Amino acid sequence: MQQPEDRASASRQHEGNADIYDEDGVIRASFLAHIGAAIADRDVLALKKDLADLHQSELGDLLEALLPDQRRALVHLLGEDFDFAALTEVDDSIRQEIVDQLPNAQIAQAVQELDSDDAVYILEDLDEDDQEEILSQLPFTERIRLRRALDYPEETAGRRMQTEFVAVPPFWTVGQTIDYLREDQNLPDRFAQIFVIDPTFRLLGAIDLDMILRTKRAEKIEDIMHETRHAIPATMDQEEAAQEFEQYDLLSAAVVDENDRLVGVLTIDDVVDVIQQEAEEDIMRLGGVGDEELSDSVLATSRSRVPWLLVNLVTAFLAASVIGLFDATIEQIVALAVLMPIVAGMGGNAGSQTMTVTVRALATKDLDIYNAGRIIRREMGVGFINGIIFALLVGTVAGLWFEVHIGFIIAAAMIINLFVAALAGILIPLLLDRFGADPAVASAVFVTAVTDVVGFFAFLGLAAWWFGVG
Amino acid sequence: MQQPEDRASASRQHEGNADIYDEDGVIRASFLAHIGAAIADRDVLALKKDLADLHQSELGDLLEALLPDQRRALVHLLGEDFDFAALTEVDDSIRQEIVDQLPNAQIAQAVQELDSDDAVYILEDLDEDDQEEILSQLPFTERIRLRRALDYPEETAGRRMQTEFVAVPPFWTVGQTIDYLREDQNLPDRFAQIFVIDPTFRLLGAIDLDMILRTKRAEKIEDIMHETRHAIPATMDQEEAAQEFEQYDLLSAAVVDENDRLVGVLTIDDVVDVIQQEAEEDIMRLGGVGDEELSDSVLATSRSRVPWLLVNLVTAFLAASVIGLFDATIEQIVALAVLMPIVAGMGGNAGSQTMTVTVRALATKDLDIYNAGRIIRREMGVGFINGIIFALLVGTVAGLWFEVHIGFIIAAAMIINLFVAALAGILIPLLLDRFGADPAVASAVFVTAVTDVVGFFAFLGLAAWWFGVG
Repeated sequence: MQQPEDRASASRQHEGNADIYDEDGVIRASFLAHIGAAIADRDVLALKKDLADLHQSELGDLLEALLPDQRRALVHLLGEDFDFAALTEVDDSIRQEIVDQLPNAQIAQAVQELDSDDAVYILEDLDEDDQEEILSQLPFTERIRLRRALDYPEETAGRRMQTEFVAVPPFWTVGQTIDYLREDQNLPDRFAQIFVIDPTFRLLGAIDLDMILRTKRAEKIEDIMHETRHAIPATMDQEEAAQEFEQYDLLSAAVVDENDRLVGVLTIDDVVDVIQQEAEEDIMRLGGVGDEELSDSVLATSRSRVPWLLVNLVTAFLAASVIGLFDATIEQIVALAVLMPIVAGMGGNAGSQTMTVTVRALATKDLDIYNAGRIIRREMGVGFINGIIFALLVGTVAGLWFEVHIGFIIAAAMIINLFVAALAGILIPLLLDRFGADPAVASAVFVTAVTDVVGFFAFLGLAAWWFGVG
Repeated sequence: MQQPEDRASASRQHEGNADIYDEDGVIRASFLAHIGAAIADRDVLALKKDLADLHQSELGDLLEALLPDQRRALVHLLGEDFDFAALTEVDDSIRQEIVDQLPNAQIAQAVQELDSDDAVYILEDLDEDDQEEILSQLPFTERIRLRRALDYPEETAGRRMQTEFVAVPPFWTVGQTIDYLREDQNLPDRFAQIFVIDPTFRLLGAIDLDMILRTKRAEKIEDIMHETRHAIPATMDQEEAAQEFEQYDLLSAAVVDENDRLVGVLTIDDVVDVIQQEAEEDIMRLGGVGDEELSDSVLATSRSRVPWLLVNLVTAFLAASVIGLFDATIEQIVALAVLMPIVAGMGGNAGSQTMTVTVRALATKDLDIYNAGRIIRREMGVGFINGIIFALLVGTVAGLWFEVHIGFIIAAAMIINLFVAALAGILIPLLLDRFGADPAVASAVFVTAVTDVVGFFAFLGLAAWWFGVG
């Protein structure tokens, strides 16, 4: 195992080599071919030299670009020189594949050189037995630290925190603190804050590093520390922790256990990943896609998408049965069948506009009880105005295409459906949110069901009544 | 104007007061009522006391929760004690409203107390005349700095950077540097890195603060600095800069002009906002919504949503004209009209699943030339398998509902349309991206057009051919 000092300087040298990417940010074909050839030649020296300068994220991108056989061979050839931190940068299934290939002893060796948050990220996906075997091969303190983080539930601050941090007592001076930092060999690789604790590890405050640097040596720590109002409970959901970082522009925050004792530090780079991931989840859910990954197989992908399509199938049959009510009318006036998808489709589009805005505003907490009333009124207004605009357009075209009565009927149906679409687009996500369901997951089905049913019923029903058929 | 030192300590004290929020993260009704009453009473002292501890984002949330009249009155009552930084935390239209209400002299006074990036954020939306008038009332160096940032195009790193930074020459020692930091009165409020420059301001390297703290006083700066491979050109797009931060886990990065001279520093808190904003844009575009805000009026909202609905109307008429080709067939077999929306709708849903995954993978650069072939083949496989699953389901139900022949026909149409939907869902975003268009904006229209047209044509066409009518 390397000394922390060496680790720090080693990781600092891995500044990366952006030359491996082309202008579009894709790994250069020439670089990939070069590495591929070295793998084929089993040229370990060349590989170590070429990959030595890569940042962990660059090595991650390279692993993703290689063919599975090349990937396996590369990890095998690099042996102990393979930078495990790269595994935090690749798809879950690729990480799984690489970790499965390696003996537990080598993994145990490797995770000791990682920051604890990276080590937890890799260990948490292993099955219980492998996890235990690896943990049992670690030195005592390392084992305790990782187990503490792994004991917190998934997606909490405790899981994402780094258990290495710098903490000093309040009665030290700035000078003592700087001397301690110069001497101590067990500092984390990087840190942006120093925490102040009492002898029982209870958190008293924090100091940003720039504050230490601009203060005279004789000053007391307790006089320059600020109370940390933003300490994060270890059990806090990672999304909530991320919102705390965003709102207060934090760079790092203390993580405390239920007794207010400092157990770790959450840093902004982890939070950036969480923010990215949560936005991603919302996009995927709105599109009717679950937690799938690009590296998933055909069968896994199909399996994850069928449930959503099934739910939609039910609403599609519901809409079809509404049309079925008016089959006699359609038999007489076939123009209705030609035009009816326009009414339903425009309603669906207008509804999903409102729904997208609502779901997003709920996620970012921009929509709350103080403006919900105003937003509902606004959406009703927009639905009504857009209803009139598209009633005029569609009514005119349909009147010219078929006959003037059909033009009036479709115009009336458009106004009704676009107004209902606006209402459904805002009320359905609000209600789902109120009842604790995730509005991003379920809103689209309900909104489409409403706009289809109302669209078909309004258009065909008006026609049946007006023409007196069916 | 306050001294920088005071400013720094003042902003540090504004740690915020999370008690103003309830469990859902919404401002407490009691707090809002309390502030509302103080505004009505014109009780300036009480307001100043109650708002003194608020973080800028908390004051921003409060402004958004107040009624427009209360907002205006509050800003007026607080006068010079109104924290302008809160304006960077509110909706564009609310910022506009508050800034319009204030005399330029007061704005000029206030922006001097802001970090340059916040000042630019507020100034950039003003019209040219007001901007010039405010800039002309600023002290020389402040004016030059802000003008330099404002001269870079919108949405570039140069616009978002902070022009205050700490820079030292390479031949200084760590001790000299620390002494300089202790003495200098003109330090930025917060900093996480020290930059190393030559006499012409050319960037030589950077040092993280923890490195300064853990190094002996006698060491030379040039021996502990690292070369900054990740210097950001001031003209770089903010999204690209954000990706650089994400990939390399940066906390701050030097911004350089075209001659490689240090002009500012970009910090992670600005980047978090950019990441949030870009993910937001993708969600909104996929939902057919432009750059609207919750505070927009009914008319502004309607205007921003009509274009998307218009485009969809064209494709809806295209689909209707396909149905029109088969009006004779529908007249004979009205069951076709009842069932046809199922074929088109399921195709639309399956297509949008594939499209969502593709658009997102393109945005995060996870989809590139190395895996595009594999992903296209995967989506074709998923489309085929899901086509068979839903062909069996829909065919059986339709066969029982109407007759067995119709069951077979709709089954065949489902297989065709779900396969085409998968192809359209992946190829359309890929092609749009290749030709430089934003796949998030245009993909949905094209995918729906394809699944509607193919869905109706396959189902009605097969029926017309099989039954020999139409």
